[in-house]
Amino acid sequence: MSDMAPMNRKRTPVWQAIATALRADISEGRYQPGDQLPTEVQLAARFGVNRHTVRHALSHLVEGGLVRTRRGSGAFVASTPTDYPIGERVRFHENLLAAGRRPEKRVLDVDCRAATSGEARALEIDEGVPVCAYHGLSLADGAPIALFESVFPLDRLEGIDRHLTETSSVTEALARAGVADYTRASTRLTAVLADVTQALHLHLREGDPLLRSTSVNVDATGQPVEYGRTWFAGDRVTLTLEV
Amino acid sequence: MSDMAPMNRKRTPVWQAIATALRADISEGRYQPGDQLPTEVQLAARFGVNRHTVRHALSHLVEGGLVRTRRGSGAFVASTPTDYPIGERVRFHENLLAAGRRPEKRVLDVDCRAATSGEARALEIDEGVPVCAYHGLSLADGAPIALFESVFPLDRLEGIDRHLTETSSVTEALARAGVADYTRASTRLTAVLADVTQALHLHLREGDPLLRSTSVNVDATGQPVEYGRTWFAGDRVTLTLEV
Repeated sequence: MSDMAPMNRKRTPVWQAIATALRADISEGRYQPGDQLPTEVQLAARFGVNRHTVRHALSHLVEGGLVRTRRGSGAFVASTPTDYPIGERVRFHENLLAAGRRPEKRVLDVDCRAATSGEARALEIDEGVPVCAYHGLSLADGAPIALFESVFPLDRLEGIDRHLTETSSVTEALARAGVADYTRASTRLTAVLADVTQALHLHLREGDPLLRSTSVNVDATGQPVEYGRTWFAGDRVTLTLEV
Repeated sequence: MSDMAPMNRKRTPVWQAIATALRADISEGRYQPGDQLPTEVQLAARFGVNRHTVRHALSHLVEGGLVRTRRGSGAFVASTPTDYPIGERVRFHENLLAAGRRPEKRVLDVDCRAATSGEARALEIDEGVPVCAYHGLSLADGAPIALFESVFPLDRLEGIDRHLTETSSVTEALARAGVADYTRASTRLTAVLADVTQALHLHLREGDPLLRSTSVNVDATGQPVEYGRTWFAGDRVTLTLEV
């Protein structure tokens, strides 16, 4: 701590600190979906600021989809995070239905190219051999919850690029390419900040928190069939691990 | 996306966008620990900015412990994230040793108080009965990697507050309170932004990404013995789930 020069510290704007505090209140369950937040006057008193600053914080949460305002009646919690189980079988469609949400996937781009060294290592193929990269968006009840890039070995999965374009579902595309079932071999998780592109796709702001998952799925023989990276909107998704 | 007025968008400072890009390069493994980063001149060319801006970005990464600079010889990657396995048995000490790091825990505070409703639900006790809250810091090779608050039911674990103060280890304190073994019943994960207190403890900046874990540990009979929340520094820890 001593090597951190105080003069270099960036001051967080007050409205942002208030938004963070309210976000924590919601994420810790102090306010449930549908609950009314304290009024602007109450919040201004609680944080010792003027109403303009409170309004700025609230409008940030509204933009992120966490809070809704109704003219004349205040601010309400819009939604709780979607529970997303990570286990041996990770299926977007089933996961969302189990959480009581309407699942939807949107194809942003499917392109075939040479495997990078990291992709080659994960998929147990040679660097430079052809892979197919599926860039897409996952939605719950119409709201974007994750951005992903999934990479598939083309030599092992003939026509996977066509199948992915035709059906946005990874499970369905793998089935059409001859992989009847697949299981999760490994998942690595960390937290990162949204860059401008991710923020646009996820309806967030640059610098909002994302949970990044890096995973490998294997077929029944243990051969890798998918190397995926997913960026979950921190406010909208909670990964659950049941042991 | 259409409801997000462009005029309301906060512009990220350029130095911050560069820091984010370099952070991603390191976290994706493009630069390994010990690797030299491109020179200030090269980075200035790559990002189309002046050297002053590049230096600002680098000094941010140095402050976060991700990069080290050596006078006259440039900037180097200081460390890769510590792998932290989350499974049926989560043991801080063993996890760190397995990752080749030196584990250390620091007690920030141990206090006994009434259980909140969330704690009561997680620990399967009544709201308001006494619990003991252990606030601490986890370090790897002397660098802070996580801040945590663990809550223990006092009625079930006599003297746990004293044991925790005497030994910073949860495993050891539980053993002294009669719990010879415990296993992880559930883990919930999301991404959040560091507030000012968390940033100070973790040697980060306010608004840096944290991976938040909420977990319950149970004894051999399935009774909850610990309800923990941990905030991992996103840059320094990767949670790994092996199925």
